[in-house]
Amino acid sequence: MKLDLDAKSAGYLLDKLREEKPLVQCITNYVSMDIMANCLLAIGASPAMVHCAEEAADFQKIASALLINVGTLSTEWVAGMKMAAGAANILQKPWVLDPVAAGATPFRTETIVYLAKLRPWVIRGNASEIMALAGAAGATRGVDSTAESSEAVELGKQLALDLRTIVAVSGKVDYVTDGTRVLEVHHGTPMLQKITATGCTLTALIAAFVSCAQDDPLVATAHAMAMFGLAGEIAEQVCEKEVVAANGPGAVRVQLIDALYTLDRSDLYTHYDVVEQMLDSPSDVSDA
Amino acid sequence: MKLDLDAKSAGYLLDKLREEKPLVQCITNYVSMDIMANCLLAIGASPAMVHCAEEAADFQKIASALLINVGTLSTEWVAGMKMAAGAANILQKPWVLDPVAAGATPFRTETIVYLAKLRPWVIRGNASEIMALAGAAGATRGVDSTAESSEAVELGKQLALDLRTIVAVSGKVDYVTDGTRVLEVHHGTPMLQKITATGCTLTALIAAFVSCAQDDPLVATAHAMAMFGLAGEIAEQVCEKEVVAANGPGAVRVQLIDALYTLDRSDLYTHYDVVEQMLDSPSDVSDA
Amino acid sequence: MKLDLDAKSAGYLLDKLREEKPLVQCITNYVSMDIMANCLLAIGASPAMVHCAEEAADFQKIASALLINVGTLSTEWVAGMKMAAGAANILQKPWVLDPVAAGATPFRTETIVYLAKLRPWVIRGNASEIMALAGAAGATRGVDSTAESSEAVELGKQLALDLRTIVAVSGKVDYVTDGTRVLEVHHGTPMLQKITATGCTLTALIAAFVSCAQDDPLVATAHAMAMFGLAGEIAEQVCEKEVVAANGPGAVRVQLIDALYTLDRSDLYTHYDVVEQMLDSPSDVSDA
Repeated sequence: MKLDLDAKSAGYLLDKLREEKPLVQCITNYVSMDIMANCLLAIGASPAMVHCAEEAADFQKIASALLINVGTLSTEWVAGMKMAAGAANILQKPWVLDPVAAGATPFRTETIVYLAKLRPWVIRGNASEIMALAGAAGATRGVDSTAESSEAVELGKQLALDLRTIVAVSGKVDYVTDGTRVLEVHHGTPMLQKITATGCTLTALIAAFVSCAQDDPLVATAHAMAMFGLAGEIAEQVCEKEVVAANGPGAVRVQLIDALYTLDRSDLYTHYDVVEQMLDSPSDVSDA
Repeated sequence: MKLDLDAKSAGYLLDKLREEKPLVQCITNYVSMDIMANCLLAIGASPAMVHCAEEAADFQKIASALLINVGTLSTEWVAGMKMAAGAANILQKPWVLDPVAAGATPFRTETIVYLAKLRPWVIRGNASEIMALAGAAGATRGVDSTAESSEAVELGKQLALDLRTIVAVSGKVDYVTDGTRVLEVHHGTPMLQKITATGCTLTALIAAFVSCAQDDPLVATAHAMAMFGLAGEIAEQVCEKEVVAANGPGAVRVQLIDALYTLDRSDLYTHYDVVEQMLDSPSDVSDA
Repeated sequence: MKLDLDAKSAGYLLDKLREEKPLVQCITNYVSMDIMANCLLAIGASPAMVHCAEEAADFQKIASALLINVGTLSTEWVAGMKMAAGAANILQKPWVLDPVAAGATPFRTETIVYLAKLRPWVIRGNASEIMALAGAAGATRGVDSTAESSEAVELGKQLALDLRTIVAVSGKVDYVTDGTRVLEVHHGTPMLQKITATGCTLTALIAAFVSCAQDDPLVATAHAMAMFGLAGEIAEQVCEKEVVAANGPGAVRVQLIDALYTLDRSDLYTHYDVVEQMLDSPSDVSDA
């Protein structure tokens, strides 16, 4: 079933996730594990951090989706990542790749390129990461992006076509593309960047939502980004109303989890801002 | 000294823990480390996450207790787990096993069965995990239980007798059994299941409390479960009183830590609900 | 440029950090990663947890500073620590060592001694850790100190001279010494010890601040300790004003992050208490 690009369809997807409670196997960096597991639980999914080569593939049998995030990379973990991605492909389970800090070191970039060619359903990164992965000259600066997301869109479209995947570029505006269509997500707040691993967590939510809408991973990804960004906006608004406590990333992190937990159709109907770019088809790029 | 099954005895145990400040060596999954360490500190114990084979056994010399949790398992960590359990046994330090997601993969189940046979003082899991460990057909679904805790009681009793240990089954009602006696703990709130690693954290608290009551690990385990559940109830009640912030697992997680920190005899005297099941001795099970 | 030992100079350093946004490569224990990354982001720095031998050295090329914390030690991680420290030395990037639980096991103590001799710019620990590292008899008790920080000052001075480094001893009063000068930091609150990994996080902030004041790592370390302690004081005061929620380490942890985020010159001008000890030069210690 194809999803529509509106609040009603996003609400439908949210309800579906809460009904299906997808079990998302997360092979992710150490920094992200606490917030990622809590946000998956809050939105209604079920997290399982299972990474080692001895069981990473086996676990896919009972999982609904797979997230691979290369944040705190090591050789041992790469083995588990490859096993899990291979199993997901065989079992036709959706899996999503987060290319954290692509371009930062040769080992990291090589690992990400290898994984990206294993056919993830979605790749989500910031502009620097997507540009580095796409082979652009833009050097990455750790996990924070030094480039605007709009700069990465053209490279992201090319990458999506080359790898036959969906590329999501986080930034002030988020872009989601399959190489042909480009969706713009106008949600979120700069405060989310002051909280560690919110990008990582978003990628895990994408895996959860895509598992509930396998016929339309493009729009499911945009919905996931809109809902996560909206939860961030709500969290910040709640904190601004507090009279006693300071209003900073510590408090917003707590409220982000609660906003994901309480998020419902009325929130989406009040504010949902995802649009499709009206662009010509990229006739000058080849679908190699 | 034997403990009584009442609030006064629980209060005595809590005071004793705060006086002795047991140093709990935790070999635990990555997801749980932050909340587990913070909850151990909050209740009055001292956490130390020391896992590698090179020092896991040596550290037992200065530790008061040991927790082994197999959440984010890998071959390297299993080596440290075995070393630490062996050292705990030689040094007669209490140790507790958390069989996270038993049944999910062959590697995991085999590892858990191996560790369970090394004579932990207590094994705490949800119903699915205990049933999987007991060899029942009940397939596990990641770390969330798909079975009710009451279903697992009979299997838990058998397991306790077979392994000469205490088995604690978390659920709507918690059950603690040594194979003969069955204690029921009527505490907690469903919200705790929306916060990652609260079960893991409870198991660490059991290790801490058992180290302060080594003559009566059965009742100490029930007291630990009651106090953790009660802290969860208090945390949720506090959050419900908040006027500004949303009331969800993010806020409850913060208040859970504070409730453990402020928990005292008056809380226990207000609400303590642990009872012993009046059942016949299990004459039909063999103590193999 | 040399820094002064006053609030104005601390404020200058804080502004400089927020302008330069130093990228701090953290090879740190699993327990600390979430709070460390969030506190680095909150104060204005950029964290990157990159640890494995395959990329730990390469990452130093784009990093501003390096933190090595041995909390959850293992052989694999030690390889990355050595690689990164070596790269930092070659590239002349400041790096800081946190000798968590020095003295607890032979493997741990040997590793810490090895790293300490690789010329870190600063070593920060509690009194037990510094005394253990200095070869004193004081046995460590996990990560909590059993000795007063003042006891460790003389040993710390000797250690600083022997290793040609700066030694910072955390405690009720913090001491920072290069072996000749001794600075006293009168900030912080006991509640910080009830929150896991606050000491680890402080060491990461020291790395960040030292990278912005490479000519004066001694005073930069004292400023970092003062600002972190002051943020803890502010966090506790905010929580004490709360009417609904309990006031414990859970809430203070959240407010600590927010206090680091909102910390500014006016906070420092209101309360900044760092003084230099007026002591004779240590004529009786040799600079071996």
